[in-house]
Amino acid sequence: MTIALAPALFAPRRVALIGASGDPAKNTARPQRFLRKYGYGGEILPINPTRNEILGERAYPSLQAAHAAVGGGIEHVFVMAPAEAALQAIEDCGACDVPLVSIFSDGFAETGPTGAARQAQLVLRARALGVRVLGPNSMGVIDIPGRFALTVNAVLEGEIPPPGSTGVISQSGTMLGTLLSRGAARGLGFSKLVSVGNEADIGIGELVDLLVDDPDTRVIALFLETVRDAARLAGAARRAHAAGKPVVVYKLGRSALGEAMARSHTGAMAGADAALDAFFRDCGIVRVEWLETLIEIPPLLARRAPLRLHRPPRVAVVTTTGGGAASVVDRLGVLGMQAMLPSAALKDELASHGVRVADSPIVDLTMASSAKRYGAVLAALIASPDCDAVLAVVGSSAQFHPDFAVQPILSSPRSAKPLAAFLTPHAERSLTLLAQQGIAAFRTPEACADALACFFRWRAPRDRDAGATPMAMPAPTLKKTPDEADALAFFSSLGVPVVASATAVAPDFRHDIAYPVAVKVRSPDIAHKTEAGGVLLGVANQAEFALRVPAMLRAVAEAVPQAAITGVLVQQMEKGLQEVIVGYRHDAMVGPVIMVGAGGTLAEIYQDYALSIAPVNQDEALEMIGQVKALALIRGYRGLPRGDVAALAHAVAAFSRLALLPGQPVAEAEINPLIVKHDGVVAVDGVLVLRHTGQEHHT
Amino acid sequence: MTIALAPALFAPRRVALIGASGDPAKNTARPQRFLRKYGYGGEILPINPTRNEILGERAYPSLQAAHAAVGGGIEHVFVMAPAEAALQAIEDCGACDVPLVSIFSDGFAETGPTGAARQAQLVLRARALGVRVLGPNSMGVIDIPGRFALTVNAVLEGEIPPPGSTGVISQSGTMLGTLLSRGAARGLGFSKLVSVGNEADIGIGELVDLLVDDPDTRVIALFLETVRDAARLAGAARRAHAAGKPVVVYKLGRSALGEAMARSHTGAMAGADAALDAFFRDCGIVRVEWLETLIEIPPLLARRAPLRLHRPPRVAVVTTTGGGAASVVDRLGVLGMQAMLPSAALKDELASHGVRVADSPIVDLTMASSAKRYGAVLAALIASPDCDAVLAVVGSSAQFHPDFAVQPILSSPRSAKPLAAFLTPHAERSLTLLAQQGIAAFRTPEACADALACFFRWRAPRDRDAGATPMAMPAPTLKKTPDEADALAFFSSLGVPVVASATAVAPDFRHDIAYPVAVKVRSPDIAHKTEAGGVLLGVANQAEFALRVPAMLRAVAEAVPQAAITGVLVQQMEKGLQEVIVGYRHDAMVGPVIMVGAGGTLAEIYQDYALSIAPVNQDEALEMIGQVKALALIRGYRGLPRGDVAALAHAVAAFSRLALLPGQPVAEAEINPLIVKHDGVVAVDGVLVLRHTGQEHHT
Repeated sequence: MTIALAPALFAPRRVALIGASGDPAKNTARPQRFLRKYGYGGEILPINPTRNEILGERAYPSLQAAHAAVGGGIEHVFVMAPAEAALQAIEDCGACDVPLVSIFSDGFAETGPTGAARQAQLVLRARALGVRVLGPNSMGVIDIPGRFALTVNAVLEGEIPPPGSTGVISQSGTMLGTLLSRGAARGLGFSKLVSVGNEADIGIGELVDLLVDDPDTRVIALFLETVRDAARLAGAARRAHAAGKPVVVYKLGRSALGEAMARSHTGAMAGADAALDAFFRDCGIVRVEWLETLIEIPPLLARRAPLRLHRPPRVAVVTTTGGGAASVVDRLGVLGMQAMLPSAALKDELASHGVRVADSPIVDLTMASSAKRYGAVLAALIASPDCDAVLAVVGSSAQFHPDFAVQPILSSPRSAKPLAAFLTPHAERSLTLLAQQGIAAFRTPEACADALACFFRWRAPRDRDAGATPMAMPAPTLKKTPDEADALAFFSSLGVPVVASATAVAPDFRHDIAYPVAVKVRSPDIAHKTEAGGVLLGVANQAEFALRVPAMLRAVAEAVPQAAITGVLVQQMEKGLQEVIVGYRHDAMVGPVIMVGAGGTLAEIYQDYALSIAPVNQDEALEMIGQVKALALIRGYRGLPRGDVAALAHAVAAFSRLALLPGQPVAEAEINPLIVKHDGVVAVDGVLVLRHTGQEHHT
Repeated sequence: MTIALAPALFAPRRVALIGASGDPAKNTARPQRFLRKYGYGGEILPINPTRNEILGERAYPSLQAAHAAVGGGIEHVFVMAPAEAALQAIEDCGACDVPLVSIFSDGFAETGPTGAARQAQLVLRARALGVRVLGPNSMGVIDIPGRFALTVNAVLEGEIPPPGSTGVISQSGTMLGTLLSRGAARGLGFSKLVSVGNEADIGIGELVDLLVDDPDTRVIALFLETVRDAARLAGAARRAHAAGKPVVVYKLGRSALGEAMARSHTGAMAGADAALDAFFRDCGIVRVEWLETLIEIPPLLARRAPLRLHRPPRVAVVTTTGGGAASVVDRLGVLGMQAMLPSAALKDELASHGVRVADSPIVDLTMASSAKRYGAVLAALIASPDCDAVLAVVGSSAQFHPDFAVQPILSSPRSAKPLAAFLTPHAERSLTLLAQQGIAAFRTPEACADALACFFRWRAPRDRDAGATPMAMPAPTLKKTPDEADALAFFSSLGVPVVASATAVAPDFRHDIAYPVAVKVRSPDIAHKTEAGGVLLGVANQAEFALRVPAMLRAVAEAVPQAAITGVLVQQMEKGLQEVIVGYRHDAMVGPVIMVGAGGTLAEIYQDYALSIAPVNQDEALEMIGQVKALALIRGYRGLPRGDVAALAHAVAAFSRLALLPGQPVAEAEINPLIVKHDGVVAVDGVLVLRHTGQEHHT
């Protein structure tokens, strides 16, 4: 279907406009005006039951009438009529063999349950009739190099923007205009732009796939509010990577962190946005922080591949303005990058070009500089092993002498090493010159540093096969409502070291666990054992056990009289260097995710955790552990004793294999705590919740 | 001196230019060209020993010659000659009764010790001769409304920028040009701009004072790399506040956090930048995060006063573009603000203007909106008690119909409640219309949210008298090298509850502290007691004491044979809910600062602390405690037992009174830990380091 979609979307032979207005001031007149303005070569068929002619074109009372008059071949219908008319349009498209309809109309899923039902009905009919749907709530599509604009977006009232190699797919129609207008003002061009609206049928993933095959597109930029088709998008992003086309996203929702799914610790610590963050990383999509970065970063990514450094990235900063350079360097530091300190060899080389540099993180060329010398320095830095990226900061000359000021940057050698320019003054002409040469140029120190940080965070899509060795053991049968003992036994079967434990039952509560032990009540009716008084810690010997366990059970029976008590769980007391929480969750948007954080309330307060798409292998687990600040305590911080990080990574990887269970039956699972020792790790408490049961167990 | 400085700086009757070039392409020709371009009405005297005429003006071989020829009255000399000539210029100014010299020359303190010595010599001579100095390394001054430009800054090559009411003082000359050019491009004007260079004589503080008295200036904006005259700046900022002129700063150095002064815990947690942050807050200076915010925020602050809310600020967001509004709302949330949810009363009022709003944090006027209705909604929101600020987001209409799109904002009622506009497309004309009406308008969602966050963080300068009740007790005599026991005794004298402790000495080590106790070796020669094996914890009774103390002392004597042991410190063992660290430091830039953080390594890893200028009163200490995330554990987090926060605040305030000791003799002091109990607090370990001794004691 993808193969047929692109021509119908961007190069239909005939276009029909349902709800086209004859009043050029109305937004429903825009598609027709813009199609002409952009030089559309095909036939435009305005559909309007009350007019025979609209803006100089013959109009038709219905799609059927138009279809009959022109003898078929209508490949794209754009609907601007109310929601009910959109439903009718689907029927009409089916009747007239129209393969694609774009729906601007609102009144669908975005309005609530009634609209959602209407949208479901629309999709059902469209599928039945073989009609593809863009929208509803889509503002349409624009193909700049192809000179095709089927959209109500007001941004096209302006000058025709320059063609470029960035393709844009946006869940917000107006932001598509924002990107286009801001880019055009500084020479940053675009290839194809699509407003997806509600994604009732055609989604982000399918459109990314389409842009992967688009020869005009080199970088794919996404403006997202959510992800509705994670699996498809993941596949498309992997195809894009294979095709050498970077995918970059600005996604709303940073502040919603932790709001959703605050039920378990895992949920409280890692909300929906964090899961999407992990998803983007997993499939090699670069996520920018600042809106402006989305416009500015494409040239930095284009024709380059992700890099994997095992140390902080070093950026060489060359400047003609100290203050301007410092404003970026400051941000680089905040984001974990370093400004390069030149080596002796590099100093010598720069000296050979007549440039003496101090032991400073900034190569200052303010004084006594020529364009030729500036160029030689840039070339030397681009070739130098001392740095991983080069940043040229240009001061006031960028405003008044654009050709001179940016010429050395324009003629610098092209390289896999990223080159960025930050212009301190208002200098649109210089920005345009750089854009035309495909050199990344930035208006603000913050977006510049953000883009460089994004480049260094950029990873190739994770190799799914590496982590996804199939389950070695047959998936054990899971009880419908597993309790702690069931959970721990199951985690043990996955390869997670679990505390020695046994169930002891009345009347004598015999067990073979070595003292001291912890004792916890077992009951399908008690979700919160501690609150029910059903936990004893540090029971030192058999005598104490014989004394305290019956007393504890009496107290529980008193507190929760209706609870059926099946026995007690006896566990060996464990001590270690640090408590860790390991969580697994089947995220509604992106599927299985695995989380590692420090145990305890403090780590929860600090939201200090790492999240990845599950499963992860041991190396990936190690990288996650490295991202948790609090786990510095067992990584050798200030001479503190080191914990067995390798064993921790092994346990995390083993636990993450919950994602490999056939049918992914686990909704949530958590080890809290997993105790990290000098030698080994051990899980001492666990929770396991299956999907669709909705039940949850806590100690 | 201030009174005389302003006219000489900005309106001298005669200006001499030492090192003026006759080649108009050279930057040393700029001051003369710019003075003429801006219509300077006074007399320009180029000084150049090799020419009689420069760019159409009569030139003089020396200042003296010019002085003699025109009969005196030279009020401002601008020096573009090498460093040595600048020194001579001071002599010449003294000889010719010139009150002020601006020095562009470099080769002074910025180059190292030799340059610093040269600069010291320059200042010495200038003071002796009664000549004030701007620079060295100053790019000069600009007075836009006064049409006076004595500067080498290339930014003036462009069109004459619009006058405005923001005064700028910058430690970076080029960034001054950056601000001016970026502002001018969108109609944001400036009053006076000064490049201070090295501040050898005239500093930021004195210039802020000067702008407080400048009728053209309404907001004072600073671009800083450091602060060299904290006391003067603090006073000037207080004067500015009293005059209703907000002061706003962009300061480099966020990433240097913690680099400086990493000696003690207090230092490691709170570096020089954090101290400056506290300083700015203390004197009511608003610190912005993003460079662009510095340009965009002045209209938001002008004519408004700081506000003190005791809940998260609520921002009403009204928009014609959902995606654009969401991009700001997302950032508002990240920065701790809330988008307003309309009350029933506000909904009713909006409905009376024909606008129905959902229970959504965004008032969406996309559909069926008129300028009149938009205006009515804005007015209703500005008047509504439901929100603390109003943000209007404008979409594509801002680009193509600026008058229509921003008209309702332009004609909205002026109010103490802040009103901000974020324009999503490239819309310079709309930005200019808003700027001309003094309405804060933003190009990026991030700077917009940053500015609103700054507004709500903005505080009136702290009332120094409130915290600064003089020491009630005569300052106790401090030993030159106080050890832990001395430190705790001293903290106790300030009013900090301290653990019961006594010094016990050989041979029988008698003491009257109740068991269990901790025992620590006392020796002026042992800085790190724990490392020397000189600490015993949990000594249960007299028998154990008699057994373990001699053994411990033998071990210490073996480990540190040269140490003179004066006895042991016996302390009651204390237990509580949380350990807190309280630090005091005499910061090199801003003077006494007080820090509160959670104890333990984790808090250090998370850099979780609050810092204020010392002393603080109990309310201020309470506010600091509220800023430390980890202290949520004793503030009632998730049903955990509450600690005695009031007692903690009392102890912090008492400790901060170290700042009131005559002569501020304390370099650093630390209580680590201060144990917070259910009822009360108690200091169990302390460090005290006096200034100039350089010595430091740790357990």
